[in-house]
Amino acid sequence: MSHLVMVRHGQSEWNAKNLFTGWVDVPLSEQGIEEARSAGRHLQRAGYRFDVAYTSVLKRAIHTLHHTLGELDQDWVDEIKSWRLNERHYGALQGLDKKATAEKYGEDQVHRWRRSYDVLPPLLDESDEQHPRFDPRYRELDPRILPAGENLKLTLERVMPFWHDHIAPDLRAGRTVLIAAHGNSLRALIKYLDGISDEGIPGLELPTGVPLVYELDEQLAVERHYRLEE
Amino acid sequence: MSHLVMVRHGQSEWNAKNLFTGWVDVPLSEQGIEEARSAGRHLQRAGYRFDVAYTSVLKRAIHTLHHTLGELDQDWVDEIKSWRLNERHYGALQGLDKKATAEKYGEDQVHRWRRSYDVLPPLLDESDEQHPRFDPRYRELDPRILPAGENLKLTLERVMPFWHDHIAPDLRAGRTVLIAAHGNSLRALIKYLDGISDEGIPGLELPTGVPLVYELDEQLAVERHYRLEE
Repeated sequence: MSHLVMVRHGQSEWNAKNLFTGWVDVPLSEQGIEEARSAGRHLQRAGYRFDVAYTSVLKRAIHTLHHTLGELDQDWVDEIKSWRLNERHYGALQGLDKKATAEKYGEDQVHRWRRSYDVLPPLLDESDEQHPRFDPRYRELDPRILPAGENLKLTLERVMPFWHDHIAPDLRAGRTVLIAAHGNSLRALIKYLDGISDEGIPGLELPTGVPLVYELDEQLAVERHYRLEE
Repeated sequence: MSHLVMVRHGQSEWNAKNLFTGWVDVPLSEQGIEEARSAGRHLQRAGYRFDVAYTSVLKRAIHTLHHTLGELDQDWVDEIKSWRLNERHYGALQGLDKKATAEKYGEDQVHRWRRSYDVLPPLLDESDEQHPRFDPRYRELDPRILPAGENLKLTLERVMPFWHDHIAPDLRAGRTVLIAAHGNSLRALIKYLDGISDEGIPGLELPTGVPLVYELDEQLAVERHYRLEE
Protein backbone atom coordinates (compact mmCIF):
# COMPACT_ATOMS: atom_id res chain seq x y z
CA MET A 1 0.00 0.00 0.00
CA SER A 2 1.18 3.52 -0.70
CA HIS A 3 0.18 6.94 0.59
CA LEU A 4 -0.59 10.02 -1.45
CA VAL A 5 -1.18 13.29 0.38
CA MET A 6 -2.58 16.31 -1.43
CA VAL A 7 -2.58 19.83 -0.01
CA ARG A 8 -4.52 22.63 -1.68
CA HIS A 9 -2.79 25.97 -1.15
CA GLY A 10 -4.45 28.42 1.18
CA GLN A 11 -5.48 32.01 0.65
CA SER A 12 -3.44 34.00 -1.86
CA GLU A 13 -3.28 37.77 -2.05
CA TRP A 14 -5.71 37.69 -4.98
CA ASN A 15 -8.12 35.30 -3.24
CA ALA A 16 -8.22 37.92 -0.50
CA LYS A 17 -8.99 40.60 -3.10
CA ASN A 18 -11.62 38.41 -4.87
CA LEU A 19 -9.84 38.43 -8.26
CA PHE A 20 -9.71 35.60 -10.82
CA THR A 21 -6.15 34.24 -10.57
CA GLY A 22 -5.48 31.15 -12.70
CA TRP A 23 -1.86 31.19 -13.89
CA VAL A 24 -1.04 34.64 -12.48
CA ASP A 25 1.80 34.07 -10.02
CA VAL A 26 0.58 35.74 -6.84
CA PRO A 27 1.95 34.97 -3.38
CA LEU A 28 0.14 33.52 -0.39
CA SER A 29 -1.41 35.97 2.05
CA GLU A 30 -0.41 35.76 5.72
CA GLN A 31 -3.51 33.63 6.24
CA GLY A 32 -2.42 31.34 3.39
CA ILE A 33 1.01 30.89 4.96
CA GLU A 34 -0.62 29.96 8.24
CA GLU A 35 -2.86 27.43 6.44
CA ALA A 36 0.22 25.80 4.89
CA ARG A 37 1.95 25.59 8.26
CA SER A 38 -1.17 24.08 9.74
CA ALA A 39 -1.16 21.36 7.07
CA GLY A 40 2.46 20.60 7.99
CA ARG A 41 1.64 20.38 11.68
CA HIS A 42 -1.21 17.94 11.03
CA LEU A 43 1.11 15.74 8.97
CA GLN A 44 3.83 16.02 11.60
CA ARG A 45 1.50 14.88 14.39
CA ALA A 46 0.39 11.95 12.22
CA GLY A 47 4.04 10.96 11.69
CA TYR A 48 4.30 11.32 7.91
CA ARG A 49 7.68 10.95 6.25
CA PHE A 50 7.69 11.82 2.55
CA ASP A 51 9.88 10.35 -0.16
CA VAL A 52 9.13 12.92 -2.83
CA ALA A 53 7.08 16.10 -3.25
CA TYR A 54 5.40 17.59 -6.32
CA THR A 55 4.14 21.07 -6.95
CA SER A 56 3.28 23.50 -9.73
CA VAL A 57 5.38 26.38 -11.09
CA LEU A 58 3.22 28.92 -9.22
CA LYS A 59 4.59 30.32 -5.98
CA ARG A 60 1.40 29.98 -3.94
CA ALA A 61 1.70 26.19 -4.33
CA ILE A 62 5.52 26.12 -4.11
CA HIS A 63 5.50 28.14 -0.87
CA THR A 64 2.71 25.95 0.50
CA LEU A 65 4.99 22.97 -0.10
CA HIS A 66 7.96 24.70 1.54
CA HIS A 67 6.00 25.70 4.64
CA THR A 68 4.47 22.22 4.90
CA LEU A 69 7.86 20.49 4.63
CA GLY A 70 9.37 23.06 6.99
CA GLU A 71 6.88 22.20 9.74
CA LEU A 72 7.67 18.52 9.15
CA ASP A 73 11.44 19.23 9.37
CA GLN A 74 11.68 17.53 5.96
CA ASP A 75 12.97 20.43 3.88
CA TRP A 76 15.41 17.95 2.31
CA VAL A 77 12.73 15.91 0.48
CA ASP A 78 13.11 15.91 -3.33
CA GLU A 79 10.84 18.48 -4.91
CA ILE A 80 9.65 18.38 -8.50
CA LYS A 81 7.79 21.26 -10.11
CA SER A 82 5.64 21.04 -13.21
CA TRP A 83 3.41 23.43 -15.12
CA ARG A 84 1.05 20.44 -15.49
CA LEU A 85 0.07 20.84 -11.83
CA ASN A 86 -0.78 24.54 -12.28
CA GLU A 87 -4.19 25.93 -11.46
CA ARG A 88 -6.71 25.99 -14.30
CA HIS A 89 -5.90 28.82 -16.72
CA TYR A 90 -8.71 31.33 -16.38
CA GLY A 91 -8.20 32.93 -19.80
CA ALA A 92 -9.21 36.56 -20.22
CA LEU A 93 -10.90 36.50 -16.80
CA GLN A 94 -7.50 36.50 -15.04
CA GLY A 95 -7.03 39.66 -13.02
CA LEU A 96 -10.72 40.64 -13.15
CA ASP A 97 -12.77 41.24 -10.04
CA LYS A 98 -15.19 38.36 -9.50
CA LYS A 99 -18.03 40.58 -8.32
CA ALA A 100 -17.62 43.12 -11.14
CA THR A 101 -17.50 40.26 -13.65
CA ALA A 102 -20.77 38.86 -12.26
CA GLU A 103 -22.37 42.29 -12.57
CA LYS A 104 -21.21 42.59 -16.17
CA TYR A 105 -21.96 39.08 -17.45
CA GLY A 106 -24.54 37.88 -14.92
CA GLU A 107 -24.24 35.44 -12.04
CA ASP A 108 -25.32 32.49 -14.18
CA GLN A 109 -22.62 33.01 -16.77
CA VAL A 110 -19.91 33.41 -14.15
CA HIS A 111 -21.17 30.30 -12.37
CA ARG A 112 -20.88 28.36 -15.64
CA TRP A 113 -17.35 29.65 -16.21
CA ARG A 114 -16.35 28.75 -12.68
CA ARG A 115 -18.10 25.48 -12.18
CA SER A 116 -19.06 23.61 -15.32
CA TYR A 117 -16.79 20.81 -16.44
CA ASP A 118 -16.49 21.76 -20.08
CA VAL A 119 -17.43 25.42 -20.58
CA LEU A 120 -14.40 27.52 -21.51
CA PRO A 121 -13.77 30.99 -20.11
CA PRO A 122 -13.14 33.79 -22.65
CA LEU A 123 -9.69 33.06 -24.08
CA LEU A 124 -6.62 35.28 -23.99
CA ASP A 125 -5.54 36.59 -27.33
CA GLU A 126 -2.32 35.00 -28.61
CA SER A 127 -0.73 38.45 -28.77
CA ASP A 128 -1.80 39.34 -25.23
CA GLU A 129 1.33 39.85 -23.11
CA GLN A 130 -0.38 37.81 -20.39
CA HIS A 131 -0.35 34.76 -22.66
CA PRO A 132 1.91 32.07 -21.16
CA ARG A 133 3.97 32.01 -24.37
CA PHE A 134 5.63 35.22 -23.14
CA ASP A 135 6.40 33.87 -19.66
CA PRO A 136 10.01 32.63 -19.29
CA ARG A 137 8.97 29.70 -17.10
CA TYR A 138 7.29 28.08 -20.12
CA ARG A 139 9.98 28.93 -22.66
CA GLU A 140 11.08 25.33 -23.19
CA LEU A 141 7.54 24.23 -24.10
CA ASP A 142 6.01 24.24 -27.55
CA PRO A 143 3.80 27.38 -27.45
CA ARG A 144 1.05 25.37 -29.17
CA ILE A 145 0.44 23.32 -26.02
CA LEU A 146 0.20 26.38 -23.76
CA PRO A 147 -3.40 27.25 -22.87
CA ALA A 148 -5.08 30.61 -23.46
CA GLY A 149 -7.88 29.50 -21.11
CA GLU A 150 -9.04 26.15 -19.73
CA ASN A 151 -12.07 24.40 -18.34
CA LEU A 152 -11.69 21.56 -15.84
CA LYS A 153 -11.77 19.02 -18.68
CA LEU A 154 -8.71 20.55 -20.37
CA THR A 155 -7.01 20.92 -16.99
CA LEU A 156 -7.50 17.21 -16.35
CA GLU A 157 -6.17 16.35 -19.80
CA ARG A 158 -2.87 18.14 -19.14
CA VAL A 159 -2.55 16.96 -15.52
CA MET A 160 -2.95 13.25 -16.29
CA PRO A 161 0.22 12.71 -18.38
CA PHE A 162 2.23 14.02 -15.44
CA TRP A 163 0.38 11.72 -13.07
CA HIS A 164 1.01 8.67 -15.24
CA ASP A 165 4.67 9.41 -16.00
CA HIS A 166 5.87 10.73 -12.64
CA ILE A 167 3.54 10.45 -9.65
CA ALA A 168 1.96 7.04 -10.32
CA PRO A 169 5.35 5.27 -10.76
CA ASP A 170 6.50 6.67 -7.39
CA LEU A 171 3.34 5.36 -5.73
CA ARG A 172 3.66 1.97 -7.44
CA ALA A 173 7.18 1.77 -5.99
CA GLY A 174 5.67 2.27 -2.52
CA ARG A 175 6.90 5.81 -2.06
CA THR A 176 4.99 8.28 0.10
CA VAL A 177 4.11 11.24 -2.09
CA LEU A 178 3.13 14.81 -1.23
CA ILE A 179 1.47 17.09 -3.80
CA ALA A 180 0.99 20.79 -3.02
CA ALA A 181 -1.16 22.27 -5.75
CA HIS A 182 -4.37 24.06 -6.66
CA GLY A 183 -8.12 23.61 -6.41
CA ASN A 184 -8.58 22.51 -10.00
CA SER A 185 -5.41 20.49 -10.64
CA LEU A 186 -6.23 18.53 -7.48
CA ARG A 187 -9.92 18.18 -8.45
CA ALA A 188 -8.72 16.69 -11.73
CA LEU A 189 -6.63 14.08 -9.90
CA ILE A 190 -9.44 13.29 -7.48
CA LYS A 191 -11.95 12.95 -10.32
CA TYR A 192 -9.65 10.33 -11.82
CA LEU A 193 -8.80 8.53 -8.56
CA ASP A 194 -12.37 8.38 -7.27
CA GLY A 195 -13.99 7.87 -10.68
CA ILE A 196 -16.22 10.92 -10.26
CA SER A 197 -18.49 11.67 -13.24
CA ASP A 198 -18.37 14.84 -15.33
CA GLU A 199 -21.70 15.77 -13.77
CA GLY A 200 -20.55 15.04 -10.23
CA ILE A 201 -17.25 16.89 -10.20
CA PRO A 202 -18.62 20.48 -10.11
CA GLY A 203 -20.04 19.68 -6.67
CA LEU A 204 -16.66 18.69 -5.18
CA GLU A 205 -15.19 21.36 -2.91
CA LEU A 206 -11.67 20.88 -1.57
CA PRO A 207 -10.67 22.48 1.71
CA THR A 208 -7.51 24.64 1.72
CA GLY A 209 -4.57 23.76 3.96
CA VAL A 210 -6.06 20.40 4.98
CA PRO A 211 -4.08 17.28 3.95
CA LEU A 212 -6.17 14.90 1.84
CA VAL A 213 -4.81 11.39 2.33
CA TYR A 214 -5.30 8.62 -0.23
CA GLU A 215 -4.31 5.07 0.62
CA LEU A 216 -3.76 3.16 -2.62
CA ASP A 217 -3.17 -0.50 -3.38
CA GLU A 218 -0.54 -1.83 -5.82
CA GLN A 219 -2.84 -1.11 -8.79
CA LEU A 220 -3.37 2.36 -7.33
CA ALA A 221 -7.02 1.64 -6.60
CA VAL A 222 -8.23 3.76 -3.68
CA GLU A 223 -8.53 1.73 -0.48
CA ARG A 224 -9.66 4.69 1.55
CA HIS A 225 -9.30 8.42 1.71
CA TYR A 226 -9.78 10.96 4.43
CA ARG A 227 -8.96 14.48 5.53
CA LEU A 228 -6.28 14.93 8.14
CA GLU A 229 -7.71 17.48 10.50
CA GLU A 230 -8.19 17.82 14.21
CA MET B 1 29.60 30.92 -22.71
CA SER B 2 27.69 29.85 -19.65
CA HIS B 3 27.19 31.36 -16.20
CA LEU B 4 27.55 29.62 -12.87
CA VAL B 5 26.56 31.51 -9.74
CA MET B 6 27.43 30.18 -6.29
CA VAL B 7 25.96 31.51 -3.05
CA ARG B 8 27.36 30.47 0.30
CA HIS B 9 24.62 30.41 2.93
CA GLY B 10 24.71 33.12 5.55
CA GLN B 11 24.69 32.90 9.32
CA SER B 12 22.96 29.87 10.84
CA GLU B 13 21.75 29.61 14.41
CA TRP B 14 24.83 27.57 15.28
CA ASN B 15 27.23 29.96 13.56
CA ALA B 16 25.74 32.58 15.84
CA LYS B 17 26.39 30.32 18.86
CA ASN B 18 29.95 29.45 17.66
CA LEU B 19 29.32 25.68 17.46
CA PHE B 20 30.81 23.22 14.94
CA THR B 21 27.92 22.38 12.60
CA GLY B 22 28.86 20.18 9.63
CA TRP B 23 25.91 17.95 8.73
CA VAL B 24 23.70 19.02 11.64
CA ASP B 25 20.57 20.51 10.06
CA VAL B 26 20.26 23.89 11.76
CA PRO B 27 18.22 26.78 10.32
CA LEU B 28 19.45 30.19 9.22
CA SER B 29 19.40 32.96 11.80
CA GLU B 30 17.48 36.15 11.00
CA GLN B 31 20.79 37.60 9.83
CA GLY B 32 21.34 34.59 7.56
CA ILE B 33 17.88 35.04 6.01
CA GLU B 34 18.69 38.68 5.33
CA GLU B 35 22.01 37.66 3.71
CA ALA B 36 20.17 35.26 1.39
CA ARG B 37 17.68 37.95 0.40
CA SER B 38 20.54 40.35 -0.24
CA ALA B 39 22.12 37.80 -2.62
CA GLY B 40 18.81 37.59 -4.46
CA ARG B 41 18.54 41.36 -4.75
CA HIS B 42 22.06 41.63 -6.19
CA LEU B 43 21.22 38.98 -8.79
CA GLN B 44 17.91 40.66 -9.52
CA ARG B 45 19.54 44.02 -10.17
CA ALA B 46 22.08 42.33 -12.46
CA GLY B 47 19.20 40.72 -14.43
CA TYR B 48 19.98 37.04 -13.85
CA ARG B 49 17.50 34.43 -15.04
CA PHE B 50 18.32 30.90 -13.90
CA ASP B 51 17.56 27.67 -15.70
CA VAL B 52 18.24 25.33 -12.81
CA ALA B 53 19.27 25.51 -9.15
CA TYR B 54 21.23 23.09 -7.00
CA THR B 55 21.51 22.83 -3.26
CA SER B 56 22.36 20.42 -0.46
CA VAL B 57 19.98 18.47 1.79
CA LEU B 58 20.62 20.88 4.68
CA LYS B 59 18.01 23.54 5.35
CA ARG B 60 20.43 26.45 5.78
CA ALA B 61 21.41 26.03 2.10
CA ILE B 62 17.89 25.08 0.92
CA HIS B 63 16.35 28.14 2.57
CA THR B 64 19.15 30.32 1.18
CA LEU B 65 18.15 29.08 -2.27
CA HIS B 66 14.46 29.73 -1.62
CA HIS B 67 15.04 33.28 -0.36
CA THR B 68 17.41 34.01 -3.25
CA LEU B 69 14.93 32.75 -5.85
CA GLY B 70 12.10 34.52 -4.05
CA GLU B 71 13.81 37.90 -4.37
CA LEU B 72 14.37 37.12 -8.06
CA ASP B 73 10.68 36.18 -8.51
CA GLN B 74 11.98 32.88 -9.92
CA ASP B 75 10.53 30.49 -7.35
CA TRP B 76 9.53 28.27 -10.28
CA VAL B 77 13.10 27.36 -11.29
CA ASP B 78 13.87 23.62 -11.09
CA GLU B 79 15.60 22.77 -7.84
CA ILE B 80 17.78 19.72 -7.30
CA LYS B 81 19.05 18.72 -3.86
CA SER B 82 21.97 16.42 -3.19
CA TRP B 83 23.83 15.24 -0.11
CA ARG B 84 26.98 15.64 -2.24
CA LEU B 85 26.69 19.42 -1.88
CA ASN B 86 26.49 19.22 1.93
CA GLU B 87 28.93 21.02 4.17
CA ARG B 88 32.01 19.07 5.21
CA HIS B 89 31.10 16.50 7.87
CA TYR B 90 32.81 17.65 11.05
CA GLY B 91 32.85 14.22 12.72
CA ALA B 92 32.77 14.10 16.49
CA LEU B 93 33.34 17.87 16.65
CA GLN B 94 29.75 18.51 15.51
CA GLY B 95 27.77 20.28 18.21
CA LEU B 96 30.87 21.28 20.22
CA ASP B 97 31.64 24.86 21.14
CA LYS B 98 34.56 26.12 19.05
CA LYS B 99 36.13 28.10 21.88
CA ALA B 100 35.80 25.27 24.42
CA THR B 101 37.30 22.87 21.89
CA ALA B 102 40.27 25.17 21.37
CA GLU B 103 40.78 25.36 25.15
CA LYS B 104 40.69 21.57 25.41
CA TYR B 105 42.80 20.60 22.38
CA GLY B 106 44.78 23.80 21.77
CA GLU B 107 44.41 26.48 19.13
CA ASP B 108 46.89 24.80 16.80
CA GLN B 109 45.06 21.48 16.73
CA VAL B 110 41.69 23.17 16.11
CA HIS B 111 43.26 25.27 13.37
CA ARG B 112 44.55 22.08 11.69
CA TRP B 113 41.10 20.45 11.95
CA ARG B 114 39.44 23.51 10.51
CA ARG B 115 41.87 24.56 7.85
CA SER B 116 44.23 21.86 6.62
CA TYR B 117 43.33 20.15 3.38
CA ASP B 118 43.84 16.57 4.49
CA VAL B 119 43.74 16.34 8.30
CA LEU B 120 40.62 14.52 9.51
CA PRO B 121 38.58 15.64 12.51
CA PRO B 122 37.91 13.01 15.21
CA LEU B 123 35.42 10.60 13.62
CA LEU B 124 31.94 9.73 14.84
CA ASP B 125 31.53 6.18 16.05
CA GLU B 126 29.47 4.01 13.69
CA SER B 127 27.03 3.35 16.53
CA ASP B 128 26.67 7.04 17.41
CA GLU B 129 23.08 8.10 16.82
CA GLN B 130 24.45 11.24 15.14
CA HIS B 131 26.02 9.09 12.41
CA PRO B 132 24.33 9.86 9.06
CA ARG B 133 23.42 6.18 8.67
CA PHE B 134 20.58 6.82 11.14
CA ASP B 135 19.28 9.91 9.35
CA PRO B 136 16.27 9.20 7.08
CA ARG B 137 17.47 11.62 4.42
CA TYR B 138 20.37 9.28 3.61
CA ARG B 139 18.40 6.04 3.86
CA GLU B 140 18.64 5.22 0.15
CA LEU B 141 22.45 5.44 0.20
CA ASP B 142 24.85 2.61 0.95
CA PRO B 143 25.87 3.35 4.57
CA ARG B 144 29.47 2.56 3.61
CA ILE B 145 29.73 5.76 1.57
CA LEU B 146 28.37 7.95 4.36
CA PRO B 147 31.12 9.89 6.16
CA ALA B 148 31.79 9.81 9.90
CA GLY B 149 33.98 12.90 9.46
CA GLU B 150 35.65 14.61 6.49
CA ASN B 151 38.53 16.86 5.59
CA LEU B 152 38.30 19.15 2.56
CA LYS B 153 39.97 16.49 0.40
CA LEU B 154 37.23 13.94 1.11
CA THR B 155 34.59 16.63 0.68
CA LEU B 156 35.98 17.44 -2.76
CA GLU B 157 36.04 13.75 -3.69
CA ARG B 158 32.31 13.37 -3.00
CA VAL B 159 31.32 16.73 -4.51
CA MET B 160 33.03 16.16 -7.86
CA PRO B 161 30.92 13.21 -9.12
CA PHE B 162 27.85 15.39 -8.71
CA TRP B 163 29.54 18.22 -10.56
CA HIS B 164 30.52 16.00 -13.47
CA ASP B 165 27.20 14.16 -13.77
CA HIS B 166 24.72 16.98 -13.13
CA ILE B 167 26.05 20.53 -12.97
CA ALA B 168 28.71 20.41 -15.71
CA PRO B 169 26.30 18.98 -18.35
CA ASP B 170 23.86 21.82 -17.62
CA LEU B 171 26.64 24.37 -18.09
CA ARG B 172 27.86 22.69 -21.27
CA ALA B 173 24.32 23.00 -22.61
CA GLY B 174 24.51 26.75 -21.98
CA ARG B 175 22.20 26.78 -19.00
CA THR B 176 22.55 29.41 -16.29
CA VAL B 177 23.09 27.56 -13.01
CA LEU B 178 22.65 28.65 -9.40
CA ILE B 179 24.22 26.69 -6.53
CA ALA B 180 23.30 27.54 -2.94
CA ALA B 181 25.60 25.58 -0.67
CA HIS B 182 28.24 25.66 2.05
CA GLY B 183 31.71 27.04 2.70
CA ASN B 184 33.50 23.77 2.08
CA SER B 185 31.43 22.22 -0.72
CA LEU B 186 31.83 25.51 -2.61
CA ARG B 187 35.56 25.71 -1.80
CA ALA B 188 35.91 22.22 -3.28
CA LEU B 189 34.24 23.36 -6.53
CA ILE B 190 36.33 26.52 -6.67
CA LYS B 191 39.54 24.58 -6.03
CA TYR B 192 38.68 22.48 -9.08
CA LEU B 193 37.50 25.35 -11.30
CA ASP B 194 40.41 27.66 -10.52
CA GLY B 195 43.03 24.91 -10.24
CA ILE B 196 44.03 25.97 -6.73
CA SER B 197 46.72 23.80 -5.10
CA ASP B 198 46.25 21.74 -1.93
CA GLU B 199 48.54 24.23 -0.21
CA GLY B 200 46.68 27.26 -1.55
CA ILE B 201 43.12 26.28 -0.74
CA PRO B 202 43.23 26.74 3.07
CA GLY B 203 43.77 30.46 2.44
CA LEU B 204 40.58 30.85 0.37
CA GLU B 205 37.78 32.55 2.29
CA LEU B 206 34.33 32.75 0.71
CA PRO B 207 31.97 35.57 1.67
CA THR B 208 28.46 34.60 2.81
CA GLY B 209 25.41 35.84 0.94
CA VAL B 210 27.47 37.31 -1.93
CA PRO B 211 26.92 35.75 -5.39
CA LEU B 212 30.16 34.41 -6.87
CA VAL B 213 29.84 34.49 -10.65
CA TYR B 214 31.88 32.22 -12.92
CA GLU B 215 31.80 32.76 -16.67
CA LEU B 216 32.84 29.53 -18.38
CA ASP B 217 33.64 28.66 -21.98
CA GLU B 218 32.38 25.55 -23.81
CA GLN B 219 35.08 23.41 -22.20
CA LEU B 220 34.09 24.92 -18.85
CA ALA B 221 37.40 26.74 -18.53
CA VAL B 222 37.02 29.87 -16.41
CA GLU B 223 36.97 33.03 -18.53
CA ARG B 224 36.51 35.29 -15.54
CA HIS B 225 35.00 35.27 -12.10
CA TYR B 226 33.87 38.01 -9.77
CA ARG B 227 31.73 38.77 -6.76
CA LEU B 228 28.39 40.44 -7.33
CA GLU B 229 28.23 43.09 -4.66
CA GLU B 230 27.48 46.78 -4.53
